[in-house]
Amino acid sequence: MTAEDVKKEIRDVKDFPIKGIVFRDLTTAFKNPECMRFFEEEMYSIYKDKGITKVIGIESRGFIMAPVLGQKIHAGFVPVRKKGKLPAETIDVSYQKEYGTDTIQIHKDALSENDIVLIHDDLLATGGTMAAAVQLIKKFNVKKIYVNFLVELDDLNGRQIFDSDVEIESLIHY
Amino acid sequence: MTAEDVKKEIRDVKDFPIKGIVFRDLTTAFKNPECMRFFEEEMYSIYKDKGITKVIGIESRGFIMAPVLGQKIHAGFVPVRKKGKLPAETIDVSYQKEYGTDTIQIHKDALSENDIVLIHDDLLATGGTMAAAVQLIKKFNVKKIYVNFLVELDDLNGRQIFDSDVEIESLIHY
Repeated sequence: MTAEDVKKEIRDVKDFPIKGIVFRDLTTAFKNPECMRFFEEEMYSIYKDKGITKVIGIESRGFIMAPVLGQKIHAGFVPVRKKGKLPAETIDVSYQKEYGTDTIQIHKDALSENDIVLIHDDLLATGGTMAAAVQLIKKFNVKKIYVNFLVELDDLNGRQIFDSDVEIESLIHY
Repeated sequence: MTAEDVKKEIRDVKDFPIKGIVFRDLTTAFKNPECMRFFEEEMYSIYKDKGITKVIGIESRGFIMAPVLGQKIHAGFVPVRKKGKLPAETIDVSYQKEYGTDTIQIHKDALSENDIVLIHDDLLATGGTMAAAVQLIKKFNVKKIYVNFLVELDDLNGRQIFDSDVEIESLIHY
């Protein structure tokens, strides 16, 4: 399969979550094992030689492909979750959303300075959540941070809010 | 690694989410790739010859290992999510929780009668959410339903609420 083939399996849902938005629904791709294979192989080809020790998934949809890649490159999986979900001591970051603020958390003992980290989410729109996740991970002084998305909405230019020391890759572009 | 080795990597957190509960925190196991390998290999050895076509993960922690197994057995991944998260037309089930009711959803076009399905979540306690998920999947008249957990809390006897036509397996028991 190619990126164009996978695009055909992604469903466009109009007016979700609010009127005027076309939501790129990846569930129709995830239920096709050929698309899953494409995501896994593409991520593997980008990240196999980076020495990544932890793959971080952002709740919830980032949990889907992060562990698949983690297994393939023999890296651990670490979740970044919404407030109140992680049971042990956490480090938090709050960030501005369209209406109000949101907080994401990671366990304080999840990473060390020796880690090389890939942070993964399914889709890059404006990039607010991922930028907050990067800010969170930087508190650990890890060696290097890579950022990956399955899909990037190029028009929204979410990429511009990241510092230049963060390497961003997306598999499919709209 | 053995199940006993993995147990040593699972963290006990006292009084989470409420006082008196010992929470079995799998995040400390997930960050160890050897534990992830154990989960993957054990699930694979149980389910490789069942003809499973879709692996269903229950939001959020069920999303972690369901796609890993799905990839390994070349089955698609399908999410069961909390209300309001899935963008297209859904089928819903509401179920009783300790305080009030909860609703879970699946996309109406996620499964067909020809599917053989594995529903996965990380932990079996009282089994309320998984029982609701089974009820949801039964509406599709799929050929067969398997249920899998990484961890089962035997004392709570959650297993007893499932019908006998559902085959339940857990990798680690407490």
